[in-house]
Amino acid sequence: MTQSTLIIGAGGVAQVVAHKCAQNNDILGDIHIASRTISKCEAIIENVREKGAMKEDRRIQPHQVDARDSAAVADLIRATKADIVINVGSAFVNMYVLDACIETGAAYIDTAIHEEPDKICETPPWYANYEWKKRDLCAEKGVTAILGAGFDPGVVNAFARHAIDEYMDEVASIDIVDINAGSHGKYFATNFDPEINFREFTGVVYYWEDGQWKETEMFASGRDWDLPIVGTQRAYQSGHDEVHSLAVNYPEADVRFWMGFGERYITVFTVLKNLGLLSEHPVTTAEGQEVVPLKVVKACLPDPSSLAPNYTGKTCIGDLVKGTKDGKPAEVFVYNVADHKEAYEEVGSQGISYTAGVPPVAAAILISQGDWDAKTMKNVEEMDPKPFFTVLDRIGLPTRVLEGGLGGTDKAWNG
Amino acid sequence: MTQSTLIIGAGGVAQVVAHKCAQNNDILGDIHIASRTISKCEAIIENVREKGAMKEDRRIQPHQVDARDSAAVADLIRATKADIVINVGSAFVNMYVLDACIETGAAYIDTAIHEEPDKICETPPWYANYEWKKRDLCAEKGVTAILGAGFDPGVVNAFARHAIDEYMDEVASIDIVDINAGSHGKYFATNFDPEINFREFTGVVYYWEDGQWKETEMFASGRDWDLPIVGTQRAYQSGHDEVHSLAVNYPEADVRFWMGFGERYITVFTVLKNLGLLSEHPVTTAEGQEVVPLKVVKACLPDPSSLAPNYTGKTCIGDLVKGTKDGKPAEVFVYNVADHKEAYEEVGSQGISYTAGVPPVAAAILISQGDWDAKTMKNVEEMDPKPFFTVLDRIGLPTRVLEGGLGGTDKAWNG
Repeated sequence: MTQSTLIIGAGGVAQVVAHKCAQNNDILGDIHIASRTISKCEAIIENVREKGAMKEDRRIQPHQVDARDSAAVADLIRATKADIVINVGSAFVNMYVLDACIETGAAYIDTAIHEEPDKICETPPWYANYEWKKRDLCAEKGVTAILGAGFDPGVVNAFARHAIDEYMDEVASIDIVDINAGSHGKYFATNFDPEINFREFTGVVYYWEDGQWKETEMFASGRDWDLPIVGTQRAYQSGHDEVHSLAVNYPEADVRFWMGFGERYITVFTVLKNLGLLSEHPVTTAEGQEVVPLKVVKACLPDPSSLAPNYTGKTCIGDLVKGTKDGKPAEVFVYNVADHKEAYEEVGSQGISYTAGVPPVAAAILISQGDWDAKTMKNVEEMDPKPFFTVLDRIGLPTRVLEGGLGGTDKAWNG
Repeated sequence: MTQSTLIIGAGGVAQVVAHKCAQNNDILGDIHIASRTISKCEAIIENVREKGAMKEDRRIQPHQVDARDSAAVADLIRATKADIVINVGSAFVNMYVLDACIETGAAYIDTAIHEEPDKICETPPWYANYEWKKRDLCAEKGVTAILGAGFDPGVVNAFARHAIDEYMDEVASIDIVDINAGSHGKYFATNFDPEINFREFTGVVYYWEDGQWKETEMFASGRDWDLPIVGTQRAYQSGHDEVHSLAVNYPEADVRFWMGFGERYITVFTVLKNLGLLSEHPVTTAEGQEVVPLKVVKACLPDPSSLAPNYTGKTCIGDLVKGTKDGKPAEVFVYNVADHKEAYEEVGSQGISYTAGVPPVAAAILISQGDWDAKTMKNVEEMDPKPFFTVLDRIGLPTRVLEGGLGGTDKAWNG
């Protein structure tokens, strides 16, 4: 039993995290939500109360903090007596929050790799540039840090582990496919922070094949995937966090990530990128003002949290894993399907925020229960996936399996 | 004979104006070029000298001026003893430069309607919002002001006048068609100041039909035009300056403007407009910076003057005028074809700047010679077009006619 859980961030994902913590506050204790803008924390708390999400009558409090100020975060951890910190702030703050956890001994959970504002797409594996440098220190101090515990990265890492453990002697390839077949009705919008969204796709696309890092470009490699529920969808090879830990943990497997994009997204992205409007480097206007174009694009786009009320349709995210079992080819697709409208009705957020926000709460529950209290730094595929799936089944993201791969026999992961 | 000519502005069009003034400095006298950035004036002068453009060995000098400071412009007119001011600065400065001319008595020439930075697309006729308010004052003081004396507006106004004078008893319609069939080899670029370029197309498209102003939207009305030299080209009804004076001077005619756009332009424009990136109103970034999106887009795009060296292909701009003559239907297409590469070789600018920059110099020559020294404010169609065509023929923009309309008999305007 945890005394209190501190959530860093107050965006769409944080709203899901807050709801799920509230629904499980018999395990996760008091809830504290901290952001640069306290009013956003207050709005989330009001929404949690309105929906009657609190399982037990416990505290839920807003806090103002600059998450890039490690000492301030450490003070807040001490003040709130937080055992667990769920960091769903911008990826720019990860290392500062992690340092605060290492200093105070609180467990750390995040959902993406740390980024520096002025750098896009660093040398692979990306984790080695930041978080993994603190691994020995976590082990030495006995601090639990679960990295990349959203959906992707996160649940898809556990999908890979499960597929390999249960269905293969040897793994040959892991293809992660992320399809959002939902519709928000806008001309264009990103499903999470546009700045982070676009940054994902402006750099080199790294993937792991034949035991080495290879490179391609965004939208250069596309493939149609025939998936459960959402049907045939086109997805493009993209750079993504989980490739960088899975390639290290399963170097014998090819590891690729595929993201679904509609024509509209590709058109808008292509125009903005080619014009230089996705650049993180400042330009100077004719009037002499220094401006980062990407930040202006972000200011012009819809707030991702505003999409939720009218979002319809489903997401399908899964891992197609191939290998051999008893000398014969083996293949399995492990996946989840989530519904935008159901997500909104339950927690007031759209499906993308829902899939990203539920898993770190599952990880927090597992740390609290002792299942995942690693006392060191771990990526998700390094932890036992079964208790993770069990909690995810219970709190809203059931895991299913197509035995034999796409078009195979559909069943629950433990069915 | 003019003592001296003052050019306001130092962009791509100003470079053409400077070259053409230099080639005709036996008529236009000393040349002065003034801009906010004096180094741009100096670069133009260096280019003029390199190309040996000066007909006579006379003065050519750079000046720094803020053209939105009327008093400073008036001081400069007095200091340079300018008889004629050719204003090819931003459309934002027109009224300030016009006021300085009225104060000092210098003749005024511009190539577009005045605009205020925070207003796009005002009530028609656009000229009535700004320049025409000073018409009585010009008449009273005997100041010559020739408005909209670029290509379009400008030469196309004279094309309309010529078609009506020579080929019709009654005019029924004037369709102005502007096709740039050139290629600059970039992913995307505008041919003149992106800010002014986009502003032309973000507002309501006004046109004059059945004796009244009508409205449509950009890209809502497209038509294929089978034109001389450039062949069949798709053009879209657009808002444009000349419609607003021609409709007043020829209220019995329908007056429409058609601009050619390729797929790439339409895609980029549509994305930027729908995302709000062409807005002239500031947005606030997450970091609290106030920024006008359109100015950031401008900062990211290629400088139009940088396109010239690699620009190939031709422009075709003309007027299809329909009416009746001796009770029978009459139709004529009056047009010019210009070549990007030839323009660059002659004056170091691309064809769009060339077509915009040569006509105001022709107008200055006509004022200097007395042909167009109106001693009041005039739009181009209110002046005799024949001396204009004669000068344009000589200085680089020959006028041709298809008698019978598109597909008709091709000849020189005076052939």
